[in-house]
Amino acid sequence: MTRLFNDPTEFADEMIDGFVAANHLQVRRVSGGVVRSTRSTPDSVAVVIGGGSGHYPAFGGLVGQGLAHGAAMGNLFASPSAGQVYSVATAANNGGGVLLSYGNYAGDVLHFTQAQEKLRNEGVDCRTVTVTDDIASASIAEKHKRRGIAGDLTVFKAAAAASEAGYSIDDVERVAILANERTRSIGVAFTGCTLPGADTPLFTVPEGRMAVGMGIHGEPGLRETDVPSADGLADLLVGELLAELPDGIGQADGQRVGVILNGLGSVKYEELFVVYKRVAALLEEAGLTVVDPEVGELVTSFDMAGVSLTLFWLDDELETFWRAPADTPAYRKGSVGAAEQMDEAEMHDSVATAAVVEPGSPESQAAAVTALAAIEAVLAVIEENADELGRIDAVAGDGDHGVGMQRGARAAAAAARDAQAKGAGVETLLVSAADAWADRAGGTSGALWGVMLRALAGEVGDTAAPTAESVSAGVTAARTGIQSFGKAEVGDKTMVDAIVPFTDTLAAEVATGKGLTAAWSTAADAATAAARETADLLPRMGRARPHAEKSLGTPDAGAHSFALIVQSIAVVLTAEKGETE
Amino acid sequence: MTRLFNDPTEFADEMIDGFVAANHLQVRRVSGGVVRSTRSTPDSVAVVIGGGSGHYPAFGGLVGQGLAHGAAMGNLFASPSAGQVYSVATAANNGGGVLLSYGNYAGDVLHFTQAQEKLRNEGVDCRTVTVTDDIASASIAEKHKRRGIAGDLTVFKAAAAASEAGYSIDDVERVAILANERTRSIGVAFTGCTLPGADTPLFTVPEGRMAVGMGIHGEPGLRETDVPSADGLADLLVGELLAELPDGIGQADGQRVGVILNGLGSVKYEELFVVYKRVAALLEEAGLTVVDPEVGELVTSFDMAGVSLTLFWLDDELETFWRAPADTPAYRKGSVGAAEQMDEAEMHDSVATAAVVEPGSPESQAAAVTALAAIEAVLAVIEENADELGRIDAVAGDGDHGVGMQRGARAAAAAARDAQAKGAGVETLLVSAADAWADRAGGTSGALWGVMLRALAGEVGDTAAPTAESVSAGVTAARTGIQSFGKAEVGDKTMVDAIVPFTDTLAAEVATGKGLTAAWSTAADAATAAARETADLLPRMGRARPHAEKSLGTPDAGAHSFALIVQSIAVVLTAEKGETE
Repeated sequence: MTRLFNDPTEFADEMIDGFVAANHLQVRRVSGGVVRSTRSTPDSVAVVIGGGSGHYPAFGGLVGQGLAHGAAMGNLFASPSAGQVYSVATAANNGGGVLLSYGNYAGDVLHFTQAQEKLRNEGVDCRTVTVTDDIASASIAEKHKRRGIAGDLTVFKAAAAASEAGYSIDDVERVAILANERTRSIGVAFTGCTLPGADTPLFTVPEGRMAVGMGIHGEPGLRETDVPSADGLADLLVGELLAELPDGIGQADGQRVGVILNGLGSVKYEELFVVYKRVAALLEEAGLTVVDPEVGELVTSFDMAGVSLTLFWLDDELETFWRAPADTPAYRKGSVGAAEQMDEAEMHDSVATAAVVEPGSPESQAAAVTALAAIEAVLAVIEENADELGRIDAVAGDGDHGVGMQRGARAAAAAARDAQAKGAGVETLLVSAADAWADRAGGTSGALWGVMLRALAGEVGDTAAPTAESVSAGVTAARTGIQSFGKAEVGDKTMVDAIVPFTDTLAAEVATGKGLTAAWSTAADAATAAARETADLLPRMGRARPHAEKSLGTPDAGAHSFALIVQSIAVVLTAEKGETE
Repeated sequence: MTRLFNDPTEFADEMIDGFVAANHLQVRRVSGGVVRSTRSTPDSVAVVIGGGSGHYPAFGGLVGQGLAHGAAMGNLFASPSAGQVYSVATAANNGGGVLLSYGNYAGDVLHFTQAQEKLRNEGVDCRTVTVTDDIASASIAEKHKRRGIAGDLTVFKAAAAASEAGYSIDDVERVAILANERTRSIGVAFTGCTLPGADTPLFTVPEGRMAVGMGIHGEPGLRETDVPSADGLADLLVGELLAELPDGIGQADGQRVGVILNGLGSVKYEELFVVYKRVAALLEEAGLTVVDPEVGELVTSFDMAGVSLTLFWLDDELETFWRAPADTPAYRKGSVGAAEQMDEAEMHDSVATAAVVEPGSPESQAAAVTALAAIEAVLAVIEENADELGRIDAVAGDGDHGVGMQRGARAAAAAARDAQAKGAGVETLLVSAADAWADRAGGTSGALWGVMLRALAGEVGDTAAPTAESVSAGVTAARTGIQSFGKAEVGDKTMVDAIVPFTDTLAAEVATGKGLTAAWSTAADAATAAARETADLLPRMGRARPHAEKSLGTPDAGAHSFALIVQSIAVVLTAEKGETE
């Protein structure tokens, strides 16, 4: 379990600060993560990686000469926000285009894709290669749905070494795609980690049993077996990987493979070496030539007890890149050329800009005061319920909902206070809050709340006083936004189960001529009832949540927090307006 | 807990094989451990380190350019045998003398000192610097009694960099002594590890509590507290270390310190970075300049949950050596010169020699058959009771007694069979068994059984048939040997509690004219009774065993195994001789 932390909501930030303090010769802090503190070749391709924190050395530990140029570092087990990815990519950009590469998880895809769009809109040639090495997470026919685990490293390293070799963005992308096609992993799990501040592990596997193919956040795997001997585990891992050769690879004598035997956190080096002894023998028996094996902790999940094996099927070009030197905080190999440190002057954080606020109309400024009061109420209810939200989310999810909502609401409130103090209208205030929420919370829920607040803001504007109709239209736009963003339907046991009845009720009440306060309260009650009903549903397919059946009887954390939020706003509206009808 | 293993008694060997397979560019296997697979400068000082296995990267992971030349790798948590240390040192020797350096534990001191004597007898200029960095393990007045923990690394690295810089053995020794004087560490523990095949952890700390100053094998510490926040832990660790500055160090502004924040196994990188953030701030507040901090897993104890902080108080020379490049399997820094791999021909294991056996007299050969039968009986009784011995030992010790005795007895039996097949007399057979036992078992019990069997062998000879008198004299010599070796007295709850009454009874019975078989049986019963009585004793002071009081009610494992062994021999003697009086 994780024992050492201060405020759990600050854990990721403090971790990054400590990491940079210990490794300033290789990395420096920028908004959203870290980039190299050494100079890169001008006009070379920047390889920008990232993902949730809690997987060290992924992702910040892999930044440095010969490996990544920057890493967007999200909150614990939550994807970085689009703003973080954009910020890191902008700071890492050497003028030769940006390759984004990351493990294939829904939240990461959402945020990195948004960031890619923003970079492209600014004229940056940005490409993306998601890593899909985990053969247990989908069939070969659906390789694009596979998750990325320890095979991240082979793809990042091949792409980065190609960049160091002077390859163009087209060729770096080609190499990364090929590396991903040639990389296959499979993992096993014995126990899950316990996140900072949580009381219980993210997931459990019965004592003496092993979950084959389980993901690094506890995503469901293939099957459960008794814990085998070290040799037995090697047989299983090698057997699974040799049963699925990449296209165009014959298992010919002398075929070269890079190998990663990865410990997830508390399976220690000695055990890994005992397993590796047998892995090496089996690969030799299969006629394969092992190139530069890595046995250690390359992608962890805090102190999760688990192991994965990765095979990287090399050709001449990939072998050169796999063997190439690298010097990062957590991955060093061979001798890189002497690193030139950047000057202090170069180490600015290129995207840290203070927002300029255009004052709103007096009517809109007045509405902004109410909107700020509503956001303060939202923050209060989230603070009060954060532990409960985490607990509910841990039943079937990754347990980060409480912390994510807390970080998002705190940041949104701070931004809204600042905007209000500068005379913002309600649209500007809500947009500030939206961006701050998405940026600080990260993860899927952060993205969704950012989308919702922005959609609402667009309907209420900075000029006229908001009306029941404009607010209702804003809420409908918010619903449309998150449905197109997250692709969930009613009945999937997601936040959508609460927002749909809320929006429908609000619109219907407003249509009958009700005032905003009364209509909102009725709609909030509908949301609360609907959130409660999610307890009887099974989670949506494809959310890659473990032990879905265990969540029966527990409401969805996102639907529950949505209901809490709209109820807290109802209280503010009632108090402000004194409406009672 | 350790889950992945095959035969627990083979764990350490399989681990070394897998380790070497994964890291052959840097290390190669020799008897007893590993040495560099790259060429070292001729006539440079060889820095040879070592200790029990289970602490990776200590010790094999620290062998390579810029760091150690060789590592003697003992069984799990058991010191390497003198034979292992000698073998590794001989293979590592470049002709410029050998510096032995290791953490200050009783078993290691015994074996490394024996090896040093053997090397010196062969004309090798051999020096020793034991590492004593753990400030919680004894007062400053008794610094020489302190244990070595993560500060091993600073001493090894300073000595090795001095060797790379062309320093003579005198100067390498001086640097190592200074580095040890300038290195201070303190650790905390939350839980202990569970060794391969064991059912229970080596030690436990109550949930929510932290043992301050506890050693890496669970040796007792200073006090127990609640688990603090990450900042609180940093305050504690830094505070303790700044309260004990090395001689000659003023805490002047700009004083330079190397820093190691070490995770013991399952306190993970993210937690370490959060703690390090505060450590760095505190050191800066104290006016200290941090040089090349290391935050990670440098000395582990399988998956023990614990943390230690090391400060290395630098002068110009030590700073140069701390900053110097290194390239080992687990520790890489800067850019070393291109490594020249050794040729296959150079990679011979210089001390692997087959024993030549001089045949004994017919009488002694006949006695050797009986001795072999006795050793086979010893092996059988150890195999049968190995789990029980491990369980008893874990109550107050490090739980390795069962595995150690098993490895020793198996090796002794194999060596004795070989000697007997070659016509050895009983002395030669017992000497072969003694050396094999000490070499394979390692640890303190391995050394003691080696000493006892050799002493016995010396009295019975290869010529005459052994008599009751000569056997009794041999047993008395064995007792004298282990008492002078281990310095234990009756009542210390050690093996001595059983061997003393055994020897006294045997001598008394033989003096009354009893035959060997009858005398031995009576003596064995005395040993059994005495071993049973150790259950009421507290362990000897200074054995550094945790939770000594917990061992009340449990016999000493060494005394218990001694009694089992002499009883099993009594059965053989009775069967062979048919004596019954």
